[in-house]
Amino acid sequence: MPAGLETSVRVILVRTRNPLNIGAVARAMSNFGFLHLRVVRPYEVAFREARSAVGAAEVLARAEKFNTVAEAVADCTLVVGTTAVRQRELHHSIRRLDEAEGRDLITSQAGPVALLFGSEKVGLSNHDLTYCHWLLRVPTCEANISMNLGQAVAVCLYELVRNPNMQSEPQRVEAVRAQAKDLDRLTTVLTEALLSSGYTTAEALPSSEEKVRRLMRRLNLSAADCELLLGMLRQIVRMRGAT
Amino acid sequence: MPAGLETSVRVILVRTRNPLNIGAVARAMSNFGFLHLRVVRPYEVAFREARSAVGAAEVLARAEKFNTVAEAVADCTLVVGTTAVRQRELHHSIRRLDEAEGRDLITSQAGPVALLFGSEKVGLSNHDLTYCHWLLRVPTCEANISMNLGQAVAVCLYELVRNPNMQSEPQRVEAVRAQAKDLDRLTTVLTEALLSSGYTTAEALPSSEEKVRRLMRRLNLSAADCELLLGMLRQIVRMRGAT
Repeated sequence: MPAGLETSVRVILVRTRNPLNIGAVARAMSNFGFLHLRVVRPYEVAFREARSAVGAAEVLARAEKFNTVAEAVADCTLVVGTTAVRQRELHHSIRRLDEAEGRDLITSQAGPVALLFGSEKVGLSNHDLTYCHWLLRVPTCEANISMNLGQAVAVCLYELVRNPNMQSEPQRVEAVRAQAKDLDRLTTVLTEALLSSGYTTAEALPSSEEKVRRLMRRLNLSAADCELLLGMLRQIVRMRGAT
Repeated sequence: MPAGLETSVRVILVRTRNPLNIGAVARAMSNFGFLHLRVVRPYEVAFREARSAVGAAEVLARAEKFNTVAEAVADCTLVVGTTAVRQRELHHSIRRLDEAEGRDLITSQAGPVALLFGSEKVGLSNHDLTYCHWLLRVPTCEANISMNLGQAVAVCLYELVRNPNMQSEPQRVEAVRAQAKDLDRLTTVLTEALLSSGYTTAEALPSSEEKVRRLMRRLNLSAADCELLLGMLRQIVRMRGAT
């Protein structure tokens, strides 16, 4: 994760209703190392229940509650709203989550950054959006653009901690690969051969079979090679039976 | 999304217990355009409840049920297991989700690809893992490596549909940016000036204030420029009061 991101980002939930969602947001923050959760006018019961739930205890225990979006973002130098909608608010520019520009604006901020997430039903209001510098959109499909809150937060935070330096050159896999059922045929024939040949015993058979199954995956077989091996193996078994 | 990915990928849930998680997985699949959900030995009640839940109806209606991992992956040419653990299974290589190599292996497969997700409590068993060619790990923190199932699926699918071509050159923001509370001071002073000057009326004040608040965000002010503007504006208001 870029240095300081875990302390600079404030995840701000506005009018969240479902305690499971608040808990899920805290868990995702904890998974990706983010510390600062703020809630604005949560449904009180939901917030209380979420605080008493197991897991992600630290993030929830530290969570701060505010009455207005203005107060919740007061110390931030960049306020980014999240939206499922493509062109709801012509007053703001919208960046896709996977655009480097938006991520770089967030990760290069020296001051605190607010990431605003609206309520489950209606998202952020037009009033909430007036506090935002720009909007962030997860690239979902037209057919179902609206994400579950906990999943939306998880995806946004993952994008921020992604390490683009882990990327290497694309590696092409051209040959038609063997299907799992073909690998299993090979596994079965070879395991049976190991048993009948005395290489393994009936007791050790399950563990031998697992070893063989893993071996078949490591071989990284093409469909053609898998067929080839199977034919060879079957022939060998047949010959042994004939002797 | 790379062509064909929505039909080539099978999301396979092994021994899932919680109906909310099955529903959340289906919703994330629907958000990112994936069609094929398979469940292996789900807790029956969970699967039934998930199917009857609202939203993501198509993915759940099409979901296929299997008794074994072997049957669920039988038609796949690449089987990728997901794991939170770093070095549990020395038999497999582990790739980080944000490594290009793993993503490219998945997206360039001509045949069907299985993405396996284990149960909420214990993940995939060693037996399940023997069906996998390699393992995928979401880069979570040491302090809390284990993700919620629905969130883990959402993050993995997001990585697959991410469009790296959306990335542009990093854009650096060097100046210290204005805090939201400073922008609000400016908004307040300017709005009051607009009212007292007759530019707006008491009735129209809320909508004028929102327009001003948005304007202040669009200006993309540094902290210094914000102070400068505030000083100028205050001086103007003071002079008007004196005339």
